[in-house]
Formats: sequence, C-alpha cells, structure tokens
Amino acid sequence: MRYCTATLEILNPWVSSQSPFLERCVLALCDHPTILDRAETQGLFSADSIERAFQILDQIPGRATGAYSHSQGIKGLRDTIASGIEARDGYPADPNDIFLTDGASPAVHMMMQLLIRSEKDGILCPIPQYPLYSASITLHGGTLVPYYLDEATGWGLEISELKNQLEAAKSKGISIRALVVINPGNPTGQVLSESNQKEIVEFCKKEKLVLLADEVYQENIYVPDKQFHSFKKVSRTMGYGEKDISLVSFQSVSKGYHGECGKRGGYMEVTGFSPDIREQIYKVASVNLCSNISGQILASLVMSPPKVGDESYESYFAEKDAILSSLAKRAKTLEAALNSLEGVTCNRAEGAMYLFPRIELPKKAIEAAKSANKAPDAFYAARLLDATGIVVVPGSGFRQVPGTWHFRCTILPQEDRIPAIVTRLTEFHKGFMDEFRD
Amino acid sequence: MRYCTATLEILNPWVSSQSPFLERCVLALCDHPTILDRAETQGLFSADSIERAFQILDQIPGRATGAYSHSQGIKGLRDTIASGIEARDGYPADPNDIFLTDGASPAVHMMMQLLIRSEKDGILCPIPQYPLYSASITLHGGTLVPYYLDEATGWGLEISELKNQLEAAKSKGISIRALVVINPGNPTGQVLSESNQKEIVEFCKKEKLVLLADEVYQENIYVPDKQFHSFKKVSRTMGYGEKDISLVSFQSVSKGYHGECGKRGGYMEVTGFSPDIREQIYKVASVNLCSNISGQILASLVMSPPKVGDESYESYFAEKDAILSSLAKRAKTLEAALNSLEGVTCNRAEGAMYLFPRIELPKKAIEAAKSANKAPDAFYAARLLDATGIVVVPGSGFRQVPGTWHFRCTILPQEDRIPAIVTRLTEFHKGFMDEFRD
Repeated sequence: MRYCTATLEILNPWVSSQSPFLERCVLALCDHPTILDRAETQGLFSADSIERAFQILDQIPGRATGAYSHSQGIKGLRDTIASGIEARDGYPADPNDIFLTDGASPAVHMMMQLLIRSEKDGILCPIPQYPLYSASITLHGGTLVPYYLDEATGWGLEISELKNQLEAAKSKGISIRALVVINPGNPTGQVLSESNQKEIVEFCKKEKLVLLADEVYQENIYVPDKQFHSFKKVSRTMGYGEKDISLVSFQSVSKGYHGECGKRGGYMEVTGFSPDIREQIYKVASVNLCSNISGQILASLVMSPPKVGDESYESYFAEKDAILSSLAKRAKTLEAALNSLEGVTCNRAEGAMYLFPRIELPKKAIEAAKSANKAPDAFYAARLLDATGIVVVPGSGFRQVPGTWHFRCTILPQEDRIPAIVTRLTEFHKGFMDEFRD
Repeated sequence: MRYCTATLEILNPWVSSQSPFLERCVLALCDHPTILDRAETQGLFSADSIERAFQILDQIPGRATGAYSHSQGIKGLRDTIASGIEARDGYPADPNDIFLTDGASPAVHMMMQLLIRSEKDGILCPIPQYPLYSASITLHGGTLVPYYLDEATGWGLEISELKNQLEAAKSKGISIRALVVINPGNPTGQVLSESNQKEIVEFCKKEKLVLLADEVYQENIYVPDKQFHSFKKVSRTMGYGEKDISLVSFQSVSKGYHGECGKRGGYMEVTGFSPDIREQIYKVASVNLCSNISGQILASLVMSPPKVGDESYESYFAEKDAILSSLAKRAKTLEAALNSLEGVTCNRAEGAMYLFPRIELPKKAIEAAKSANKAPDAFYAARLLDATGIVVVPGSGFRQVPGTWHFRCTILPQEDRIPAIVTRLTEFHKGFMDEFRD
C-alpha cells in the first residue's frame, strides 16, 4: 500500500513500509493462479487470500484473468461491488448499474463525453475544483459553470449560489446539464452535512440536472461530527427512486486507506437513466474494450473487506484504523501549523487528503509575482519549493474567488517527518513575509 | 496466457491450459514484493523471474508499484522498451518518445483527439478497417476518409488509391491530417511488403501526413515469404529522420503470443513531432494521470524476452514457437475450409489473427435479409450463430466495397476443436445455400 507520488504533493510521497494488505496477496495469486495449489503458497499467503483468489477466479469466465472482460467489467465482480454498496447504504444496488473503469478519471470523461453536445452545454462545478473537471469539460467542448464554495463557512455549498449561477448561465443561453459535487471535497477537504446533501438532491431533481457525485474519498473522514453519506443513499432516504433523479457516483481504489493509484481501478454507479441513455453509456464504455482486470479485482476487494472470522480480519482492520487515524492526526497537526502562520487561515480537513489554506500576500509580493509573470500564489509556491523542497499546488490551479490566494497541501507526509516540514515551512514563511512586508 | 473473449470471436475464446509465461510470475512478484526474500518463493518462481522482479522494482521510484507514475509511464520501463525497439529495428529509440497506455486503444484516441479540430479534418483509413478507428474519429468529430484495400491482390494497398481519395477529399474541403495503416492487417490479415511500406512513407512525407502505424500484430506472421518491418525502421532505412516524417507506432500486450488483453498494456512511440506538439501529447496523456502499472510492466516484458542463459529462456521460446506455429496451422486449415465453401473466397492470413472471406450470397438470401431489416452478411452471421453457436463478425461492421459481403473470423479456436467447427460451418453453409439458391 502506497500513496500517490504525483508532483502535486507536499514533499515526497508517503510510501509506507507496511506489509501489503490482503488485496496485494489476492492480486498476486490471481496473476499467477498455477501456484494456488502448491504447498509453498500456504506458507506465503493467508488462507483467506487464497480462498478469495479462488472465488474471484471462479467469477471470471474461463478463469481467464488475461482476457478482455465485458465492457462494464466482470459480472461477478460487479455483483460483489453491488453487495458492498448495499451494505454501505442500506438500499439495493444493481450490478448492471456498475461500470468498472481504469480509475475514476476515465469514468468522469465518459460522462462528460455523453453530456456535452456543444459549448452551449454547461456543467456546474465547485470552485475551487479538482482540475480533472475543468480539463474534461474543455476537452469535450462544453462550458464550465462555476459555483463558489463559501470559505467562511468551512467551504459550505449554498443552494442560493447554485441557483444564481444556474440563472446567470441560462440568461447567456447556456443549458445546464449536470452538477458536479465532490464530497469529501478536493482540494477543500470539507464533508457535506446530510441536510445539505438533501437540498442538493432536491435542487437537481427540480432543475432536472444529472448529479455527478465524486465520492472517491468516502473512507477518508477525520472528524467525529461528520459522516459520509452517499448521494444515492440520501436520495433514497428522501423517497426518490430511479424515476426521480439521474445520479452517477464515482469511486476509486486510489484513495481511502488503499491508495492504490497505480492500479487504475474504479467504478461508477449509474442510476436513474432511461434504457436508451444506458445503451449509449455502454457504447462509449465499449470503445476501449474493458478496464484492466487487476484494477477490476481491486475495486471489488475495496468494496468487500474481510469479515469476522477471516484470517486477515484483525490485521486488515488494524492496518485500516492505523492509516486513517494517522491521516487524521497529520491533518490536525498541519492545520494548526498553517493557522499559526502570519496571514494564513486554514479550514479544518474534515475529509479527503487535503488542506487548502488561504494566504494574505503583501502587496509587494503581488507586485514581485507580476514582474515574474506568475500568479501570486504560484510565485509563493515556487519560492517555497526552491527554498525548502516542499511542493504545494497554487490555488490558481483549482480556481478561487478572484483576489484571494490559496495553496493545496496534502496530509500524506509520514507522521515522523511532519515536525521537520512544519519547521522548514514556518521559517520560509517568516522570511518571505519579512522580505515583502508592505 | 489467454486470448480474447470478446464477442467478436469465432466460437468460444481460446483459453490455453499452458502454465503462465515468465510474465505472469514477474507480475505476481511485483504485486506482492514482500515475498521476494522468502525461501518458499524460490520453490515457486524461476530464478530469472525473481531477478526480473527485483530489476523492475528498482526502476520504480520508491519501489512504489501502487503509486501513480510519470504520465508517460515509468522511465526505467520506457528505457527497456526503447532498447527492445532498437534490438528489433537496428535504429536508435528514445525512451522520451514512448508513451505507455492502457492498451493501444487509448493511444489511438489520444492521437485522434490531438489531430482532429473539426469535421473538416480527415483521417485516411483502410477499408475494411478495425472499428476502433471509425469510432474514435466519430467521437472526436472528424471525418473518416476511406481508402479501399484491393481484395484481388491479397488486400493490397495501392498508392494510386490513396492519392485519389486524398484529392477527392481535398476537393470537398477536407484537410487530410493523417494516414492510418494497420500492418499486419485487421480484419484482413495481410502483411505489407517493404517496398509497399516505402511508397507509403514517401506518400506521407510528400503530403505532410502523420503516419499512424497500427503495429500491434508485429509478432503474428505466419508465412515464410513475409516479414514484419516497423514503419520507423523502413523510414530510417530510407534515410528519413525526425525532420522528415511524423510517425506514431502503436503496440499492445494483447496480441502477439502474449494475448494479455485484460491487462490493458501498450505503448505508442512518437517520432518526428515538434517540441510544442510533444508538449500537447504529454498534456493529454496527463489528464488521466498514468496508465496502470501492471500493464506498464507487462509492456516492458513483451519488449524484452529472456536472453540466452536465463532459466526461462528455453521454455519461453518453446512456448512462443508452439503458439505461433499453432496459429499458423489454424490459419491454413480455416482458410482451406472457407475456400472449399460454395461462393466463398478467402485470402490467406499472412499475419494478425483473422481471415476475412468474401461470400457471394444468393439473391434470395439478400431479399430475405432485407425483409429481416439486416445487412446480408449480418443476416448470414446471425443464421450461422443460431444454427451452430459459431460467432463471426459481418463484414459490414468493418465496411467493405459496396455490394460485396464478407465476414471476419479469428484463427483462435484451439487446434483440436477446429475439425468440428469446420464440419458444422460446412454443413450450415450447404443448408443455407440450398435454402436460398436462386
């Protein structure tokens, strides 16, 4: 288990030295099934990983882990995922609603490709937003219609803001097709309350918008007063079914406590679409034949953790708890450190893997950035990188309220490295502010 | 090692019962590296697969097989692939020209996305063609400009035909951006001669077209009088370098003697583009972060088979030879069987995995197809499926000269099953012709 090494991270990636979870054992056995019956294998792998591998192989037609699968993904694995969703939500899930994909990103592209007909089609996106959405909307020739999250209320999502932006877009001849909600938020780290989610569902229902729910951080919740609720569960709780709301939920193996970004596994659950639209989604999914089978297997494992009595049960959940509680601690430490910096205010990371502090930059720094032909937050981030080796992403990469400046930093650095990072960041910041103080 | 189970295949997929190649061992060890140092592992895995796994892990920053990689793919694996291309072609290859992708299909989409600006941009494609190309061109809003392969000369590619179609398109205001060549051919199974390839390179250079060379069947050659030559090698032999021709070569782990379709591994080698266009290719590649790491590892293994002295050397090449010579035998048997059917003529499968016989259908069958609202070849294929369980793909799925009818069948059924398939096909065909004879 390892976390992302994208250039978008603070300092080096977190590469844990923990032994792999059950997942990696099962993947290895599925890759090389001829060893399943060998005596040595029982010394190397847990009994439940061997059993799981056998179960999964039985779910694959002809046990052919090297063959193309159904373009939606292997049916047996979709059954497992649907059961996992049912266990999470307490409402039925249909394996035929599941589309397995190479991570969540291709799933988002697929939906954008289907939703956008021309630049007159708009997609409501949160600002700040994860740049996958702006990139995908641009690539498919549509219009990103921004709605601003309210930093003052912990990146709150106000329905009045959605309404205003929808009306403003309409008056420009833009027809809004869908609303993107990222919950828990990226880059903003907030977790929506259930009552807020209900308002969002109501809004989409009323305005006939497809609700694109980016729920890839569903396991990453760090505060006791918040819980993850899927939009599907919330809409079903409200009594809304297939006919009331079109909903897509994105999930990934790259987040949570798995962090298996390189495996490119994920799925979308697609509900509330007519059969002919479903047919079109399937058609687009089939153009690339199928998603990679290891990623498919991993997605099914992520949605079906071991059960009481399984050999790996205790070690698996001990590892899970250790990772998530460590991430929560890191979030708190970094949040406190950021808030102690002059001119910096930082909302708490309720979930996801990010903090998105706001920074009041001195006028002189803004002028220096202008001379260097950089956005002020990019100027700050470049100076930070040069001085300390710490990588943060300027807020301008995610968009922000004009005139405000932010940066995103992850909560991924290993716990024992955080004090040193905080010291270096604090020293740099002090020096920077002194250099440019008005 | 298993072959495709797509619905596009004749009868059931070929799922061999051979023990996995070196590749599968290395993949399993990379998935679960903690077992590398265990004594039991040496009993289960060959010494060279263990050594390879160590080498590959050393090539991955932080040994993080679960992390995102560089968006072009892991640099060390690209080094290996570049060496493999050099060994194949006898000309230098640059790891920075390699983009690792989830199979060849996403690479084709990426290039189409970059090449097509509007419906006024045309892509020259062979007819018959693998439908990925028509689908991708349609999805990206361009125009497919067909050139017809000449069935009478073994699916020959005539430069005069290319010129005529180019001029005709130009006169309609279409600007031709690229030429797609599939070599060995899909669905047509021909292998281009080197002299023909030289003409094609010359044509692309003169007309300033990007040459999109689909070379995924480069290992699948079944006749002694033909050899595979990459278009890059051919153009370098002609003395053309980076500045003379823009060339993209697509390769995949799904074909050859590997058949690892479900792993979604592949790459494109991109040469002769300016730095700013290269930057755009990289930008598009980075939107989905990276391709899956198992597929990346497999692509590097496909381009670096074991060497003399490696423990797996002999078994690996014995397996390779057995698979390829068996495919050659199947191709011959099926070709002869098809040619013995009334009204059917079939070019030989020189390469790839397909036969694309032409079928003269009686007038009455064509009328019956019309009544059933089906293309005549689709009508034939549906009847064949109903009567025998044999799946072939109607030629109309690949496009064909109007008024001619074909179907594609693979050469993948296991050798011992072919006699029974031939008997059933022959009986069906006889009955069909008797039923509809004019």
